[in-house]
Amino acid sequence: MPAQSNLTPVLTAAETNTLMNSVYPQLNEQFRFYEVLDVFPGGCTVRLNASGRHLRPGDTVSGPSLFTLADIGGYACVLSHAGPDALSVTTNLNINFVRKAQAGPVEGHCRILKLGRSLMVFDIDIVAGPEGQTVAHATGTYSIPPQRS
Amino acid sequence: MPAQSNLTPVLTAAETNTLMNSVYPQLNEQFRFYEVLDVFPGGCTVRLNASGRHLRPGDTVSGPSLFTLADIGGYACVLSHAGPDALSVTTNLNINFVRKAQAGPVEGHCRILKLGRSLMVFDIDIVAGPEGQTVAHATGTYSIPPQRS
Amino acid sequence: MPAQSNLTPVLTAAETNTLMNSVYPQLNEQFRFYEVLDVFPGGCTVRLNASGRHLRPGDTVSGPSLFTLADIGGYACVLSHAGPDALSVTTNLNINFVRKAQAGPVEGHCRILKLGRSLMVFDIDIVAGPEGQTVAHATGTYSIPPQRS
Amino acid sequence: MPAQSNLTPVLTAAETNTLMNSVYPQLNEQFRFYEVLDVFPGGCTVRLNASGRHLRPGDTVSGPSLFTLADIGGYACVLSHAGPDALSVTTNLNINFVRKAQAGPVEGHCRILKLGRSLMVFDIDIVAGPEGQTVAHATGTYSIPPQRS
Repeated sequence: MPAQSNLTPVLTAAETNTLMNSVYPQLNEQFRFYEVLDVFPGGCTVRLNASGRHLRPGDTVSGPSLFTLADIGGYACVLSHAGPDALSVTTNLNINFVRKAQAGPVEGHCRILKLGRSLMVFDIDIVAGPEGQTVAHATGTYSIPPQRS
Repeated sequence: MPAQSNLTPVLTAAETNTLMNSVYPQLNEQFRFYEVLDVFPGGCTVRLNASGRHLRPGDTVSGPSLFTLADIGGYACVLSHAGPDALSVTTNLNINFVRKAQAGPVEGHCRILKLGRSLMVFDIDIVAGPEGQTVAHATGTYSIPPQRS
Repeated sequence: MPAQSNLTPVLTAAETNTLMNSVYPQLNEQFRFYEVLDVFPGGCTVRLNASGRHLRPGDTVSGPSLFTLADIGGYACVLSHAGPDALSVTTNLNINFVRKAQAGPVEGHCRILKLGRSLMVFDIDIVAGPEGQTVAHATGTYSIPPQRS
Repeated sequence: MPAQSNLTPVLTAAETNTLMNSVYPQLNEQFRFYEVLDVFPGGCTVRLNASGRHLRPGDTVSGPSLFTLADIGGYACVLSHAGPDALSVTTNLNINFVRKAQAGPVEGHCRILKLGRSLMVFDIDIVAGPEGQTVAHATGTYSIPPQRS
């Protein structure tokens, strides 16, 4: 699979977590559950520690919880690779749910498909369970505002 | 625009709200914010009463909050038109965010594009503000499990 | 349903057809099958006259043929509303196929969801058959390059 | 990245090519341009040999040509892994175009995300050029009809 491994992150995972917590004060409560595990050239890894509040009927992790993980994964990609401009916004996100995920850790492996001046396109494999099976896959676009100078 | 107006709902808006609250006990807290306003042949209308907790940087309603509204809109369509089988699940959802939405009421106008035996496809126009401008548009698919007999 | 009816087209349907035929010389052969029927404030109507070459196994109009109709519908929207800059490009297109379409006329009803300076988002209902049933629905984004001055 | 490498193909690449040519007689002319290069557990590789007829303004490979490659990639996955039932149909396809592709070989690397009894979900990285850069990425769903017995 091709990777944009020639990209260079400008923030570490810890710096990205700190930044997301500071710019999303209203989500602080949720961010105990979502975190950036790793940032590497061309992508990042994020995790949802799914508990009862993230479940839907059938005791599976809810669609909105997995969507949020995908959206945060893209946000961590854009912050860590395009710089800490917190006003980047999602313009499109497409998600397929393919298996049920139980409560517990759910990991998202993000890959930047294109980092342009005004748009970033990424995808994310969301995996869970002892065998690390794919539970969802998403593709999304972030709009990057012009640099404030 | 074509509508599936030959479809016949089997639940009212009030019955759909009651059902969603009972099958999603872990989301009760959130359901004060999300509600079904209307069910009609071939679709339904849902509303998010967006408050501070639904906002992201820039004071705009967050992507996950609008995704949740779209997902609930599709769920209300499938419950009200295919019957109260709570185990229907989203298999795909694609959402475009086109304008910022402020805190306040955000309405979702849902339309069933196809109601088959095992799949329902719908779209939703999400509008907000005094002029009712489109803030997001989503298309999704619900998988309908075989009837339990 | 909300419409962007405050938008003002700058080209007619006939002008849009002429423009698409001139900028796509390598597709001239195909354009006998695809045409713009109408341009109106905030949208347009396009048609595929589906013949044998557009069919796939089961004698249904193929996915690529319906995708092309959706893509041309968006292109006609951007040309007619943002001006005749032929270098606009599709950045995302999501299509759901919900019913089979037979050979014959297939119409696409396009609606502009957002016309910004650099992006246009649209959706299209694709209908066919004597009862005008929805056979597919697509949502897409066109990138509009900066004006050449 | 997780792979469904426990899946077992039931057709080779050559058998898949032969099958696609026989069930799509009306597309024979096009199939000189599209071919299956490889089938492996959990996926396949397809190729478009893009010539003048596949280009759009700006001399880039057109969106419909890349969509067709993605659709054929999914079709090759379902034929080779679920068996040669030619009536499987695409229900959803989402494609992002991220870079221009010139005339020449364009390769699609397909991965099965889920192979169920009635649905297959896949994604495809479409790459081109001397450095094998990603030019598009798509995710799609095929509906698999019940076995004829």
